[in-house]
This record gives sequence, C-alpha cells and structure tokens, in this order.
Amino acid sequence: MKLAMIGLGKMGYNLTLNLIDNKHEVVAFDVDNENVVKSEQAGATGAYSIEEALSKLESPKVVWMMVPAGEITENVLSEISRLVTEGDIIIDGGNSNYKDTLKRAEELAAKGVHYLDVGTSGGMEGARNGACTMVGGNEEAFKHVEALFQDICVENGYLYAGKSGSGHFLKMVHNGVEYGMMQAIAEGFDILEKSDFDFDYEKVARVWNNGSVVRSWLMELTENAFSKDARLEGIKGVMHSSGEGKWTVETALDLQAAAPVIALSLMMRYRSLEPDTFSGKVVAALRNEFGGHSVEKN
Amino acid sequence: MKLAMIGLGKMGYNLTLNLIDNKHEVVAFDVDNENVVKSEQAGATGAYSIEEALSKLESPKVVWMMVPAGEITENVLSEISRLVTEGDIIIDGGNSNYKDTLKRAEELAAKGVHYLDVGTSGGMEGARNGACTMVGGNEEAFKHVEALFQDICVENGYLYAGKSGSGHFLKMVHNGVEYGMMQAIAEGFDILEKSDFDFDYEKVARVWNNGSVVRSWLMELTENAFSKDARLEGIKGVMHSSGEGKWTVETALDLQAAAPVIALSLMMRYRSLEPDTFSGKVVAALRNEFGGHSVEKN
Repeated sequence: MKLAMIGLGKMGYNLTLNLIDNKHEVVAFDVDNENVVKSEQAGATGAYSIEEALSKLESPKVVWMMVPAGEITENVLSEISRLVTEGDIIIDGGNSNYKDTLKRAEELAAKGVHYLDVGTSGGMEGARNGACTMVGGNEEAFKHVEALFQDICVENGYLYAGKSGSGHFLKMVHNGVEYGMMQAIAEGFDILEKSDFDFDYEKVARVWNNGSVVRSWLMELTENAFSKDARLEGIKGVMHSSGEGKWTVETALDLQAAAPVIALSLMMRYRSLEPDTFSGKVVAALRNEFGGHSVEKN
Repeated sequence: MKLAMIGLGKMGYNLTLNLIDNKHEVVAFDVDNENVVKSEQAGATGAYSIEEALSKLESPKVVWMMVPAGEITENVLSEISRLVTEGDIIIDGGNSNYKDTLKRAEELAAKGVHYLDVGTSGGMEGARNGACTMVGGNEEAFKHVEALFQDICVENGYLYAGKSGSGHFLKMVHNGVEYGMMQAIAEGFDILEKSDFDFDYEKVARVWNNGSVVRSWLMELTENAFSKDARLEGIKGVMHSSGEGKWTVETALDLQAAAPVIALSLMMRYRSLEPDTFSGKVVAALRNEFGGHSVEKN
C-alpha cells in the first residue's frame, strides 16, 4: 500500500523503515530535510512539503501523521485537511488527547474524510520491529488500511478498538496503568534500598523476571537499567511526564472513577520535580506552631 | 538429592511432583493422609509423621517445609527442630514474615542447624513446572541444596539473595509490588468500563500483551479472566489479602520509605471488604451538618 508518512522523528522514521521492510511504499516528509534524505536512502520517496507528499499519492489518499500531540498536530492536520478530499484517510499515530480527536474526527467527517486515531505503544524498538497499536474510527476506513497495522505490529499487536477516539482513549489509559506499575516497581526497590539487606538489584529484577508474578516488560527494563548502573547513582530521581497520565486522571475525575493509585503515581512525579516543597514548609511550620517542634531553617 | 517435603498442599504437592520429575527422592508428609497416598502414587516415599519422614533421611538431613505461614509454620518447625542435629538444613518455602525468619534462623544457628528462607513465586503452575525462588540464609547451606532450586525453577528463576531473612524479605516486597501493579491494571479497566466507549476487555488485554509497555504476566492473567467472563459479572469486587502486602507497608513505615501506591493498593483492598463504610457515614454526616447536603438513609 502507498501512503505518506508526515513526521520522521524517532517514531515516524522507525515506522517508515518498518513499513518499507513490509513492502509498503512510503512518501516521507519531515520539517527537517535531513530526515527526509535519510528516509530516501532507506527506500522511501522523499517529499519536501506536505503538499508535495500528498501530490504523490493516488486516491483514496492515506496520510499517516506521526508528530507530537498538541499544537504541532493541530497545525500539520490543518494543512493536510486542505489537501484531502472525500474518501481519503488521515491516521493520527501520535499521543493526541482523545477529546481533540473526537472534535477533529467530526470536522473531517463533515468533508467525508476519515480520521483514524491510533495509539502506538512499544517505543522506538516497537516502531522499528513490531509495534502495538490501538485504532479508533470508521471501521470501513480501518479495514482499508488494516494491512498496514498487520504488517508493522507484533502478532496480535493491533486492535480495532471502536468508534473515533477509542484508540487514543485506550492508549491514554494504557499509559495511566503504566504510571501505576512503574511507581509500584519503584517503591519496591526503594524499600529494598532502605533495608539492611544487601541486594543486587539487577539480580533481583532478573529473578523477578523469571517465573514470578511480577514479570513484565517494565521489570525487564528495570533489569537493563540496573545492569548499566547498579544503584542508579548516575541519574536523579526526577520523574517527568508527557501528559497522558494527567489526562487519565482528568478522565477518571470526569467519570467519577476511583483511581487513587494512578492519581498518586502522577502526584509522586510532580513531587519529584521539586527539591523542596511549599506543602512541606506549611506542615513544618504548623508542627512548630502547635507543638514547638523544631524546623529546619533555609 | 534426598529430602523431606513437609506439607503437601497446593504448593507442596506440586513441588513434590516437580522434584520427582527432576530425579530427586522425596519423602512426603502431610497431616492429611490422602495427600501422602497421592504423593506415594506419584513416586514419593510416604511418611505418616514428621518423625517418620525425618527418620528416612541421611545426614545432613534436608527438610523442606511448605506449610502456611504463622502458627502452623511455628508448630511444624518446633517439631522438626527437635529431630534435627548439627549440619542439617531446614528450608522454609512458605510466606513467613522475615522478622520471624530472623528469630528462627538465630535459634537454629545456635544448634548448628541451617535455616534457609525461600520466597516462592509463580503460583501452583510455577511450583509444578518451573517456579521462581529467592533464597536467604547461610551460603554454604544454600550451595549444598542449590541443585534443588536449579532443577525446580525456570531458567534464571532462583537467586541466592543473601543473609537470613533476605529471601522472605524479597518475596514480601515482590508481593507489595504485585499489589500496586494489580491495582493500577484494575483502575485502568475501571476507567474503560465507565467510559462511553464499548471496549472488549479481553481484546484490550490481549493487544496490551503484545508489544505494549504494560505487557506482563498479570496482564496475561487479566486476558484469561476476561476470556472466561467478559465483564466479570460472575464475581464480586471483594479483594482479600494474605498478609504480605500489609507486611510490606509495615516495613515501609519502619524504614520511613514513601510507598504510597503500595499502601493505597492495600487500603483499597480493605475498602473492598466493606459494602458500606463508617468513614463514609462520617463524611456524609459532616456534609449534612455544615451544608445541609442530603444524606442517604439506611
């Protein structure tokens, strides 16, 4: 199948290679010309504007956006929208908020254009060698491009999840679950680290990955991390986040779903961004006020 | 190697079969004669008392206890203790609290008896076909019986964790991590269930198990559970616990380790045991007191 890949960053470039391996014809565009050249060398047809990329496709055009969620997706999509016509299919493979997806799908549907929202998991390695994708949107449009997902994903690694928004919703919740699992793993190792036993964390993660109940890809990544730095002395425990944990918690609030562990995993990330906290000062000041307990001075 | 297996319940019986498959000689005892007969039929040498079991071993005797933690372990161990002498090795494969283990190991060490604490993960299926074990205690004693662990565990599935208590400590923290991971998975599906999308949970768990970041044995079990009952309508959301989550949180408190996700996973289990709560009544009453907000009457 012939399609345009818009965005050749870490994910888009690896997906392009994966698609080419699977005999698909990729017209590759990126704002950075170097990425286009690199993709041409890998067998893609280069394009130096979105317009050029789309002009090289036959109808119905299939356009895969693999760009950062938010403003960039909005801008790229508005340009693509001007160039597509009835029956064309736009795939948003980024981590867009499902509420934005619902609006975009509705606007495009009014023009007869299909908008498929695709949650993509598995990281760069997955994009290159076998991803996991969750697809929402019109089912006929999905079937038209299903071969793409079948080819670039691991076995049983793609799902038509339902109506528009369901792909991004599922990916959002997937990331929320991931936050909770990561925090649980992290707390476990923190307890080990504070104990007076002398554990080898790489070996602990390895044994937990072989036959135990907590074996998981995240535990394998834990094993990798400890194999490189036995006590993680080279890095700080500052935990950034990229939005989907927050959206999961916001969604839980909207739905009145009790999701304390996912919420707290997110809050612990926020806590980690501050070397000291104002809330800590407030509690210390109050203990001093009512009980004369000493405070640590700045 | 010849050893006695004391306790032929779900775990002990399956370990016995696993050991026999691996050419070890098992003298099998259980308080329930039927379990002894079953083990004899599977190739073990039956024993109808702990004394008889130990009399059939040569020195140094290797005695594997696979009985419930707490009082039963205490009683069985005190009987075994009277029958062992210097150089013998007692293995506690149950989920004993590591603090009890430390005491027991010290008492037995005074008699020259080695006490190995073994955390066992992987459930019945693991016990039968390849477990995951974490072993604490005297290293020489461990080496004497290492072949047992090598044979009954999956590849890379056993670890000599260090001094006495470290095996049970590691298993305890493993279970704490498990509580957090399970609650995170559960909250994710709860959000999906409350959304207005129409997800097939079995398919969601399956796609998440193939190439995604959250792929894990627990997610595979989730897939199994939904394959049997698509919305789990046949069971109640009452979450019992068997003690190790509580010990993990108690240990976190002792060590002043911040483990909010594991703690909250445990609290959510307690919450699930009550159809209504006294804390809920207190909050409802207070809202009524200060704001005249309506309460739901019993």
